[in-house]
Amino acid sequence: MPRKVRSVDLTQVSEWDDGELRRKDDYLAGEEPLEIRIGEHPLSVTMRTPGHDLELAAGFLFTEGLVQRREQILKLESASPVGAPNSGNVVQVELTPDAVPDFEKMRRHFFAASSCGICGKASIDSVRSRVLQPPNPDFRLAPEILLRLPDALRSSQDVFERTGGLHAAALFSARGTLLALREDIGRHNAVDKLIGWALREGRLPLAESVLLVSGRGGFEIIQKAIVAGLPVVASVSAPSSLAVQLARELRLTLIGFLRGRRFVIYAGEERLEK
Amino acid sequence: MPRKVRSVDLTQVSEWDDGELRRKDDYLAGEEPLEIRIGEHPLSVTMRTPGHDLELAAGFLFTEGLVQRREQILKLESASPVGAPNSGNVVQVELTPDAVPDFEKMRRHFFAASSCGICGKASIDSVRSRVLQPPNPDFRLAPEILLRLPDALRSSQDVFERTGGLHAAALFSARGTLLALREDIGRHNAVDKLIGWALREGRLPLAESVLLVSGRGGFEIIQKAIVAGLPVVASVSAPSSLAVQLARELRLTLIGFLRGRRFVIYAGEERLEK
Repeated sequence: MPRKVRSVDLTQVSEWDDGELRRKDDYLAGEEPLEIRIGEHPLSVTMRTPGHDLELAAGFLFTEGLVQRREQILKLESASPVGAPNSGNVVQVELTPDAVPDFEKMRRHFFAASSCGICGKASIDSVRSRVLQPPNPDFRLAPEILLRLPDALRSSQDVFERTGGLHAAALFSARGTLLALREDIGRHNAVDKLIGWALREGRLPLAESVLLVSGRGGFEIIQKAIVAGLPVVASVSAPSSLAVQLARELRLTLIGFLRGRRFVIYAGEERLEK
Repeated sequence: MPRKVRSVDLTQVSEWDDGELRRKDDYLAGEEPLEIRIGEHPLSVTMRTPGHDLELAAGFLFTEGLVQRREQILKLESASPVGAPNSGNVVQVELTPDAVPDFEKMRRHFFAASSCGICGKASIDSVRSRVLQPPNPDFRLAPEILLRLPDALRSSQDVFERTGGLHAAALFSARGTLLALREDIGRHNAVDKLIGWALREGRLPLAESVLLVSGRGGFEIIQKAIVAGLPVVASVSAPSSLAVQLARELRLTLIGFLRGRRFVIYAGEERLEK
């Protein structure tokens, strides 16, 4: 019998509290592999929290540069792997001919040496080459609005409240209105789900939105934000050196340590209203 | 001129504090890609915090199942990609003939369908098949020792204190003695660095040690711990559903929410002293 795929699981655990041991029920964040298939070809397998799988697949296809427009995705549906009916861990994709990747070329590249060497600079150049449109230079955000976003995110987090185990990513307007929120055990997946939502809704590029993430702002989060045209990324925690470098070179506004009435501006200070 | 590869970067940022804006110096956690090469073949590229790169490569080779013994690693050294001398973002590996992977087969498998379907059960079975030795059933740990580990980890964290941006993983003895601690922007990398250290020191399997991680206990962290023979994994945060299932099936002790004088036991309660 196939296992059920859930975003939250309930299980019995033991809690040790200052020497006292007791049994209790506990909610766990779901984690299951998801395979994205293009036609007959498996494209990727990622560990994710089930839920919003089509958005995750759409966002992954977009932020990885396989598609640039939603019209290139002809079909996007949950499918079942051979021998595991209804397990729900496969998303089947059909793309327009111009978007179908050259799998033979990808195969050759997978273990092929990069021509430019491996370095942060090459990683940044690779993002630059995929940007459709640089982050909106005219977008402005009031600090008082920015300060409110972490509470707005927390009060809307659904699964986290029960499991304490999920990363969240949310899109807000310049006025602080929550547009969408997604949760996942993987930080990148939460962002891909959001961007996949925007792609499917015809909202890309996200030139008038702010991305808030609950975890750290690493290189790959900033990369996804820039490809989606976001002008501002904020995080309650610290960014990495390469994330800051990427934000500065591609003129994204990057905020970190957004806590209480304080935050740190790592790049793009001009978008914050005085 | 090649960029320098550092575990910590110093940069100028702006801090907004209740309406006041001021410039200050800030430390950032380093993030750079690392390529692991076996002979002529690039094996993987991962974003990591520079430092302990040889351990990271050794741990990756071991936890991914390419090597089972340190003697299979004939050479392990920092190298430079073509055109970027001394960037330090490549680890060159030479393995004994029995350990060199079949790159042609790996290439074919990369985009090949998995025969058993994609599901959590298949992920667990795949770990089971790689376990050299099940977690030590005789290992015992006193709750009072467990309670002390988070403080011991924090007081030894080096880079985190300055950047606030790193995950940590540490190995402790049953008496609570810190054996080794590694930090990285990637949770998996911090664990691979630790296990790589143990492999190179001839300390595997880690049948008498406890692994403490600063972040969440996801499936891949538990997988790495089990492959390294660790009997106990503890985390200050929540595990995922699949991590708990894996720990229960392979009889690892899994602790979560280790904070203050409280923790939750998700699996393997028998290893905790009454």
